[in-house]
Amino acid sequence: MWRVAFFSLRPRSHFVWMDSVPESAASVKKILCEAPVESVVQVSGTVISRPPGQENPKMPTGQIEIKVKTAELLNSCKKLPFEIKDFVKKTEALRLQYRYLDLRSFQMQYNLRLRSQMVMKMREYLCNLHGFVDVETPTLFKRTPGGAKEFLVPSREPGKFYSLPQSPQQFKQLLMIGGLDRYFQVARCYRDEGSRPDRQPEFTQIDIEMSFVNQTGIQNLIEGLLQYSWPNDKEPVVVPFPSMSFAEALATYGTDKPDIRFGMKIIDISDVFRNTEIGFLRDALSEPQGTVKAIRIPEGARYLKRKDIESIENFAANHFNQEVLPIFLKANRNWNSSVAKFIMEEQRLELIRLMEIQEEDVVLLTAGEHKKACSSLGKLRLECADLLEIRGVVLRDPALFSFLWVVDFPLFFPKEENPAELESAHHPFTAPHPSDIHLLYTEPEKVRSQHYDLVLNGSEIGGGSIRIHDAELQRYILATLLKEDVKLLSHLLQALDYGAPPHGGIALGLDRLMCLVTRAASIRDVIAFPKSFRGHDLMSNAPDSVPPEELKPYHIQVSWPTDSEAEKSSLNHPHHPES
Amino acid sequence: MWRVAFFSLRPRSHFVWMDSVPESAASVKKILCEAPVESVVQVSGTVISRPPGQENPKMPTGQIEIKVKTAELLNSCKKLPFEIKDFVKKTEALRLQYRYLDLRSFQMQYNLRLRSQMVMKMREYLCNLHGFVDVETPTLFKRTPGGAKEFLVPSREPGKFYSLPQSPQQFKQLLMIGGLDRYFQVARCYRDEGSRPDRQPEFTQIDIEMSFVNQTGIQNLIEGLLQYSWPNDKEPVVVPFPSMSFAEALATYGTDKPDIRFGMKIIDISDVFRNTEIGFLRDALSEPQGTVKAIRIPEGARYLKRKDIESIENFAANHFNQEVLPIFLKANRNWNSSVAKFIMEEQRLELIRLMEIQEEDVVLLTAGEHKKACSSLGKLRLECADLLEIRGVVLRDPALFSFLWVVDFPLFFPKEENPAELESAHHPFTAPHPSDIHLLYTEPEKVRSQHYDLVLNGSEIGGGSIRIHDAELQRYILATLLKEDVKLLSHLLQALDYGAPPHGGIALGLDRLMCLVTRAASIRDVIAFPKSFRGHDLMSNAPDSVPPEELKPYHIQVSWPTDSEAEKSSLNHPHHPES
Repeated sequence: MWRVAFFSLRPRSHFVWMDSVPESAASVKKILCEAPVESVVQVSGTVISRPPGQENPKMPTGQIEIKVKTAELLNSCKKLPFEIKDFVKKTEALRLQYRYLDLRSFQMQYNLRLRSQMVMKMREYLCNLHGFVDVETPTLFKRTPGGAKEFLVPSREPGKFYSLPQSPQQFKQLLMIGGLDRYFQVARCYRDEGSRPDRQPEFTQIDIEMSFVNQTGIQNLIEGLLQYSWPNDKEPVVVPFPSMSFAEALATYGTDKPDIRFGMKIIDISDVFRNTEIGFLRDALSEPQGTVKAIRIPEGARYLKRKDIESIENFAANHFNQEVLPIFLKANRNWNSSVAKFIMEEQRLELIRLMEIQEEDVVLLTAGEHKKACSSLGKLRLECADLLEIRGVVLRDPALFSFLWVVDFPLFFPKEENPAELESAHHPFTAPHPSDIHLLYTEPEKVRSQHYDLVLNGSEIGGGSIRIHDAELQRYILATLLKEDVKLLSHLLQALDYGAPPHGGIALGLDRLMCLVTRAASIRDVIAFPKSFRGHDLMSNAPDSVPPEELKPYHIQVSWPTDSEAEKSSLNHPHHPES
Repeated sequence: MWRVAFFSLRPRSHFVWMDSVPESAASVKKILCEAPVESVVQVSGTVISRPPGQENPKMPTGQIEIKVKTAELLNSCKKLPFEIKDFVKKTEALRLQYRYLDLRSFQMQYNLRLRSQMVMKMREYLCNLHGFVDVETPTLFKRTPGGAKEFLVPSREPGKFYSLPQSPQQFKQLLMIGGLDRYFQVARCYRDEGSRPDRQPEFTQIDIEMSFVNQTGIQNLIEGLLQYSWPNDKEPVVVPFPSMSFAEALATYGTDKPDIRFGMKIIDISDVFRNTEIGFLRDALSEPQGTVKAIRIPEGARYLKRKDIESIENFAANHFNQEVLPIFLKANRNWNSSVAKFIMEEQRLELIRLMEIQEEDVVLLTAGEHKKACSSLGKLRLECADLLEIRGVVLRDPALFSFLWVVDFPLFFPKEENPAELESAHHPFTAPHPSDIHLLYTEPEKVRSQHYDLVLNGSEIGGGSIRIHDAELQRYILATLLKEDVKLLSHLLQALDYGAPPHGGIALGLDRLMCLVTRAASIRDVIAFPKSFRGHDLMSNAPDSVPPEELKPYHIQVSWPTDSEAEKSSLNHPHHPES
């Protein structure tokens, strides 16, 4: 008699004890014991209860074992490049190269199965409960204005290319005009951004559009959708989600995607320092748009080490060329800072009052133009949170899912390369805020939009807007304000002329949402076959070379870079390990 | 007092009577009556019961009308390029150009909503009832061997291209190896076939793969899937579906996708004519593979006109260069044919017995090699059915959905351009029939496969197979028998080495299935935004030119054809109206 320790029954990761009937013990034992790990074996036999006292109630299969009569080795497994239970230690490049083995890990099985279940629940909610129609839209389409990030697909007509769209934006609006009043699609989208961490050249969004709806209507729908589809093994979603204006998000958290699971809000303390002798504060305040801002790190003096503060200062200097002034509050209420002696007692008291400063806190000050000072402190706030958590402070409850609507975005931003010109803050189809429409013709940069973003734990997981349904207004914004080539969009402009209903929608980034729900380290862990950091499929080695004769039907040829260009390009993309 | 005749409430195509309250009659009347057809109007008022005797019980909204208090014109509609209720008369090119208007038609609304509902039911069946996992697979991938029909996508690396796959075949097999034992996906696929009627460059398939399954297992699953998802307003699906071998389908119906809703089967009558004086029959039978075949058109002599028979003879001559001999059976049992006098009485009696010939039938004879004779008669059989139906005979019940499995295909076909070499009848991952494995090494052309096709009313709507899970066998077939470049598939071959379970699957063509279910004239009528016959989006004008600077990041340039090449190409694709 012998007993196989246990066998893993893939794919549900169940283990089962096996024993053999005496008659076939030798042959069965030989097959089962000699099969390499991860081989595929077929056994026949009888399922029986485990002997009393040997049950494992924690396992779904813990009550049974199999009395094996026959065993057959269906497929033997070669020596594995890594152990499959060892999820963490192997490098990501190796995991991607042998993705089919990595998929066998508990974590990948859990992530992909949960993703499937959650999307199914979303479909039930939209399709069965709310009358949405799942419509597939084309991915071989025409390039959009400014679509520099769109992959091209050569056609068999010389010089003519399709484009892989970044979203079904135009189609969903055309569907509204076509009378499909409630559209949704789990849509594949494409964006060619070159190498960017945690981005994929193809990604998936839950794409939704409705006719005769306003901002609240879309928000209620999405709150219900997430509540309905939320996994049972997670903290339930509480609705309605809080809402915050873009202006408040920027002023208080220094970002349009605030993580509101913790405080450390940005406080404007310009008034405290109107008459300061501290040089960089005085200089900043002498500018017309100058401000002084600060965040308070509770118990920072207790938890943060000197080198943590140095790393914060370095971070500020390296990432946004911003001077940051840390002030430590000692237990004895003394202020420890290089500028402490320049802070007058009344300023000190005012700061304590404004910022609710307590013993052992650290305060980080910065100065400059409102937006820049806020975004800098917003990033430092997150850096400090990371540092505090490394030091053992629980700041962001990992079980908590904290949703937030960010609303009232500006409709336009000044162009970075030419601030006199405007560009859409989101996209040119976004409707202006009804209260601000008159400003379009006088001060367009002040117009707020009907755009809304959905933020989860500090990550943007969705965004949408009420769209323009008036052809005149759309033409004015595209041609006069944005100076876009309207020819590329003539079909959409024309469609608006034929009785377009008021409409709006939203898109949720499924990959990022699943990443947050499963608490995965990267969106690559919620995608079955992701591309590497550099856009490669490391398993199949895509993209790959193509023989010139296969390019011929598409009337294209490769423009090989000259030596000097190639050198320049390899400097931009130095050879580094993938992932 | 006045009364608006009625108003169409899109999108559900409901009509509602409207009346106004007396106070606002004038203003409401002005707005509603002056709004052009297809404009968007918002009214507020009270829903009341229709006056007794004026109810319309046939309409969901027939019991009510609205007492309108206020009305607002939300969007006025320009003069339409065509009337929207007039579905049939407008040209398809115009319909595609103004697709958003065409989508408002009853038929397109019905087709797209039914498609969404049917796919949702399929998802419920697979995901909720049978534990399948919906996994999204990449569409930016590596080209496959012989993937000449794959669209290319240039990457930012010089000379490197992604490929848009024709199906997720490799991924679904890799998912099985990765332990996701039940996979499905409503998968977008791409095939660049140039101009072919009723094909789309991108299309959708219900893609399924399972581990530890055999042919019967997949067939049962699909029968259940179609039964579960079948629309309530259609004749229910009867399971199990009948099954027929490829050899029988070819011999009896002259095709691998027989329409079994009607008879007119092919009969081999070679033995009747062993000693004939009819020249082309005698010549054919003197060849080693020569046969004589016939179909019987019941009551053909009664329904078919002389010009019908001429059109059949022309069709045979034009389409497959095959001589066809029609024989008319008169009511007086006389045989009317140019060769009647060469048919001896005993041959006549034998033919009557074999083919169950009755008065007023027509018999079509042809001769030649088995496969060629069968396929010719198979096509003539369909031509004759069309002609009979034009003449008023109901041959194929339009309400009937007749499914059929075609099985036991050959694993290989001789290559058309070089019959000494073999090519896969379907794809190189198809497993050989277990009874024929030994023939692989001796007479591979005789090996049957474990491939199965699903046929509905004479159209192939799906196909699949049990796959090879043994790396050695897969290598032998790819390298030795098919002489493929195995390097392009090394990742799949390698994956088979790591404990691949036995697995198989199927893919259903969703567009064609929906086309048959809705009895649409073309698959373009079940797709929201289809491409034209020539692969164009007539609404947006895609594919489109791209400025050279946008090609630069992809290291490609257009090879403009020389004048003579351009001329040749325009001969192949003459300018003709789209669609």
